[in-house]
Parts: sequence; structure tokens; C-alpha cells
Amino acid sequence: MSKSIKLCDISDYEKFIDKFDTFLLDCDGVLWKGGDTLPGKKLLFVTNNSARSRADYVEKFKKLNIEAHEDEIFSSSYASAYYLKNVLKFPKEKKIYIIGESGIADELASEGIRHCGLSDNDQQFKPEDIVPDPEVGAVLCGIDFHINFKKLAKALYYLKTNSDCIFLLTNDDATFPASGFIAPGAGAISAPLITALNKKPDAIMGKPNKPMMDCIAQKFKLNLERTCMIGDRLETDIQFGNNNGVTTLLVLTGIAAEKDILVDNAPIIPDYYMSSFGDFAKLC
Amino acid sequence: MSKSIKLCDISDYEKFIDKFDTFLLDCDGVLWKGGDTLPGKKLLFVTNNSARSRADYVEKFKKLNIEAHEDEIFSSSYASAYYLKNVLKFPKEKKIYIIGESGIADELASEGIRHCGLSDNDQQFKPEDIVPDPEVGAVLCGIDFHINFKKLAKALYYLKTNSDCIFLLTNDDATFPASGFIAPGAGAISAPLITALNKKPDAIMGKPNKPMMDCIAQKFKLNLERTCMIGDRLETDIQFGNNNGVTTLLVLTGIAAEKDILVDNAPIIPDYYMSSFGDFAKLC
Repeated sequence: MSKSIKLCDISDYEKFIDKFDTFLLDCDGVLWKGGDTLPGKKLLFVTNNSARSRADYVEKFKKLNIEAHEDEIFSSSYASAYYLKNVLKFPKEKKIYIIGESGIADELASEGIRHCGLSDNDQQFKPEDIVPDPEVGAVLCGIDFHINFKKLAKALYYLKTNSDCIFLLTNDDATFPASGFIAPGAGAISAPLITALNKKPDAIMGKPNKPMMDCIAQKFKLNLERTCMIGDRLETDIQFGNNNGVTTLLVLTGIAAEKDILVDNAPIIPDYYMSSFGDFAKLC
Repeated sequence: MSKSIKLCDISDYEKFIDKFDTFLLDCDGVLWKGGDTLPGKKLLFVTNNSARSRADYVEKFKKLNIEAHEDEIFSSSYASAYYLKNVLKFPKEKKIYIIGESGIADELASEGIRHCGLSDNDQQFKPEDIVPDPEVGAVLCGIDFHINFKKLAKALYYLKTNSDCIFLLTNDDATFPASGFIAPGAGAISAPLITALNKKPDAIMGKPNKPMMDCIAQKFKLNLERTCMIGDRLETDIQFGNNNGVTTLLVLTGIAAEKDILVDNAPIIPDYYMSSFGDFAKLC
């Protein structure tokens, strides 16, 4: 197995950056106040968090003094909407049943895709609510802080009874780090449906899965050979690049440590690694 | 593979019944107005439904004109309480976090086991609610019509942070038949925790699993060689007997049909089968 190359000084940074036109950046690991740091390079922020829309991210970034345009953000909520519209050509007369937060609804609406499900938030389950709705052509499941039995039962019912009803996940992270604890992620929230159906989803967006990269490449007409994925998590960010023919750079400001990639038989190793995104600022 | 024996006439019934002292009966498949039909034989009703307590079942049976005593009912809610008290010797100073319905709480209380969790029903998730509670020594998960993100996040937190916190399921049915649709079962409701923990539960009660039979045998001091499990579902009832050294009788009044057990390579076959429980009434 080939070894990771460590980027140590300005000369390394310059040679590295010259190799690429586009950098895909993990959102949560962003400590680098980017934007205009690398003239002539395209920066795209890629996040598995489906709870927010791209517009929400622009606002969040503003508070962190990061200037970003909606078109520079690729969230799993938007990726799902993009995939439904441009890859699956989801029929206009059909609608999506959402298990998830408003970020998904906003992005579906922005692509002109009809949806339902959010009105079932915080509702008690009543068997008489489980009734046919042949217009539901897909169930899209992401992180959902309002998950309940009614939503699970309705989603299961549509998937079992509507012919060709598609089952999509925004992402399949089993957990995510909340403030002070580890919370169930979209992969956990969708597990009841996978168990009850005894089948895998038809597609899973989100890092490290292929549909996310395909959508990014298609939308931005990227040359993946001149694209680099930068992030702090091996299982999502680095695997995302490794799985999809994109060079990877691990930054050690997050969960992964140098020893994780230097041990014998490390399961996931990046092409490059460095201490911190912030070091690129030395170039300016 | 040995073949199933079909019970066809009164002579068959008599010879069959003579072989056993105790009959374990699936509750939901009960069409046989039992009780005093088979003098000298012990009848026990065994159900995977954890939503009800044994007392609830006595009431339900009364409405069906079936006389049954609480001690003749073995629900997965009671089995869980029995297992915690008598097998695990669950410490008195600890308590159980319940994901499930009141039947579980009632049965834990009847065995003197402290519990919490039901007050989180229909509550919105707030990150600040996820706080340590070192008294939680186990999470017990069953069917829960009030499942929500708060309950999942709390259960996950206790299982990850409380050392030796035990993870139990009342049963692992992926689905159950509701009126007019297939609903997510306890196996689906527990799937987020299994996914987020990336590990199996420490024990699963309920048919067809061994702990349920062990508890029944221990409580009633049964000779399992003189015990027969009667039910209408191959995967739960018949597998329950087959897995645990108990003779099985399939009745064809439910989901399973004769062809399911007569085909070559049928995965689960009962020792005996007959058209209907009701045929035993011909003996009286």
C-alpha cells in the first residue's frame, strides 16, 4: 500500500496546490477562513448534514466570517434534490415523503420537487392515518429530530404499497458528534425502514458514497483528476475521495491522528496530509 | 430432513396430546377457546407483543370469552422483567431506561425493578436534556408508538457512557401485522441503537430466541421433552420450538400454508401440523 505524503512547508504547499483546479472541503472541519485564499482555484464545501439548506449554510458561514455563495455549498440535502431532478428525472406529478428536517424540504422546493411529511412532525400515531397516497414516488430519509412512529409507519407503507416507490438516504452516518455527546445520525434514523423492508436503500447520497461525487462532478463539470477532497475524517472525507478517483488531503485538526494513517494495515489512508488547513495561509 | 406429521382425526389428536404435559400457545393465533378443553394439561400463552402487560392480556382474553390467569401468560414484556430479575439479578439500586410502551413499565414494576423513560414520550429533543444518569443500568427496547429522537439519543448516551449498561430487546420482529398494513416492529424500533452502537443487543427476549424459553422453563419448572409449542407462524412460533428442543405443532389458520412446509428445502418445518386449533374441541 502506498504511503501518505506529508505536506510540511511552503514549497510543499505550492507544489500541492498547483496540481488542482478544485478543492472540495468538509464543512464541519473548516478552520481555514477560505474564500479568497487561493486565487484561481474553485472551492466547494461538501457536508453530510442534511438538516440545513445551502441558504442556511451561507448564513452560518457569514457568522464565522466566511464568505460563501450558495453555489459553493454542496449539502446532502441539496445533493438529494439534485439527484432526484437530474439523475432520476423524478416525475413532476409525484411527490417525496420526507423523513428529515426543513433543509431537505427547502432544497426539494428549490428544484421544483413536491414533498410532504414535515406536517407529521410531533404527531401521535393513529392506525387510521395510514392510508394510500399513490402520489408518493419516493421516501427520502435524513437526520430527523422529529422522528416518530407515524412517520416510520407511513414511510414503510408507501415503500411497501406504491409500486416503484424509491428509497433514498441523504447520508448514512451512524452517528454525529453533538455538543458533549454522540447522537444518532441519518444512518440510525433510516435503520427502522431498512430493517422492516429487509432491503438496502436504492441510493445513498452523502460522503463517502458515489452519487454525491457524481452529482458534484456533473453540476460543476469538474475534471476529477484536478480535484482534491480535503477533510478531517477518514471514514467520510478521505474515503469519499479514495472511493471516487479524487486525490485526498487529510488535516489533523479533527478526529484522525497521524498514527491512524501510519500504522501497518491502516484501512483508509489519504494521498496527502498536513497539520492544519490554516497552514495554507502562509502562502498569501 | 424429517417430514412434518399431519394430525387428521381424533385418534391422531389423542395420541398427540398424550405425549405432552404443557402446551405453549401463540396468543395472536389463538382461535381455540381453551382453558378447560384439555383436562390435566398446562396451557401457557406466549406472545412477542410487549406493549401489553399480562394483566392487560387477561382483560383482552375476557372479552374474547377466554378465561386465563395472569400466570398463564408469558409476554415479552414480562419475560424481560423476569430475565432482568432472575437471570441477570439486576441490582436494586439501578434502573432501566425503557424505549417502549406501558406494558413493559408495568411488568418491571411488578418485579420490583425501577424504570424511567415513559415521561420522554411525545417530547421534543433538546441537546441540553442529554445529561448523565449513572443509575441507568440497562436500556430495554420494545415496540414503541411514542418513539422520538430524545429517547433514542438518551438511550444511546446511557449505553455509550454508563459502564456495563446492558442493552436488551423485548423481541426482534422487524414488522407486525396491524389492521390493514404492516407496521415497524420492535426489531425496527431498536435498529437505530444497533446501528449507532455498531453492536448487537446483549440479549433478545421473545420468540424464537432462547432466553424466552429458558425463562418459561425456569419459572414453570417444565420438562421440555413433554412440552409442545403451538402456533401459526414458522419464523417465530415454530422456530422457537425447533431452536430450543421443544416439539412444535403448526396450525394452518394463520400466515403459513401447507405448501410452505412440504416444499423441498423448506427452511423451517414443524414436527406436527393440523388445519386448526379448533379441531381439538372434537375431543371434548
